[in-house]
Amino acid sequence: MNAPTHPTPAAGSHPREPGPEQFARAAEVLTLLADRTRLVLLHTLSSGEADVTALTAASGAARPAVSQHLAKLRLGGLVSTRREGRRVVYALRNRHIARLVTEALGHADHDLTEAGPR
Amino acid sequence: MNAPTHPTPAAGSHPREPGPEQFARAAEVLTLLADRTRLVLLHTLSSGEADVTALTAASGAARPAVSQHLAKLRLGGLVSTRREGRRVVYALRNRHIARLVTEALGHADHDLTEAGPR
Repeated sequence: MNAPTHPTPAAGSHPREPGPEQFARAAEVLTLLADRTRLVLLHTLSSGEADVTALTAASGAARPAVSQHLAKLRLGGLVSTRREGRRVVYALRNRHIARLVTEALGHADHDLTEAGPR
Repeated sequence: MNAPTHPTPAAGSHPREPGPEQFARAAEVLTLLADRTRLVLLHTLSSGEADVTALTAASGAARPAVSQHLAKLRLGGLVSTRREGRRVVYALRNRHIARLVTEALGHADHDLTEAGPR
């Protein structure tokens, strides 16, 4: 006997129905993520916290540009900072950020390696 | 004796180091996702495939706007379509899309319910 064929919600789908404010905030976060350099910075931070020198080296971008991107990410609530003497150390603000970066890169990989038509 | 304190990569981080093309494609996908109405449509599709009538009802947006958003999502490779008689049925193109929507909404929820300062 076959199992019923009703569509099942995707694994990990959100437990309660999100409201308009939540969709709006999610769109804001995605707007901040939708930049190559910021994605590289967040990807680097998904392996652990880092200062602007390390992040500049990892991204290959100019240091002033990296500082500006980090300021945007901090204001947008995607990264947090702490002082360590004269250094400012950056970290991802929550686990959702790391997962967003991982899934976006996973989708891109999927897209780039897929041979068939869209 | 204490365990070594080297930072460990975040669980689920990408297995191999992504290249510039992959970051660029990921940023494109995130740009497409960074829209309230498109997020609602993708969230609806994360529970199963749907046609434009059902998606219009779920989103509360005007049908022509919904059709335009769906066309963009299809061109961008985020949704696929199949014909069923005169209906066109939409579905998420891969599991990364559902997870991106879930994580973006999860982050937004986190942000909106968190009491402390950023």
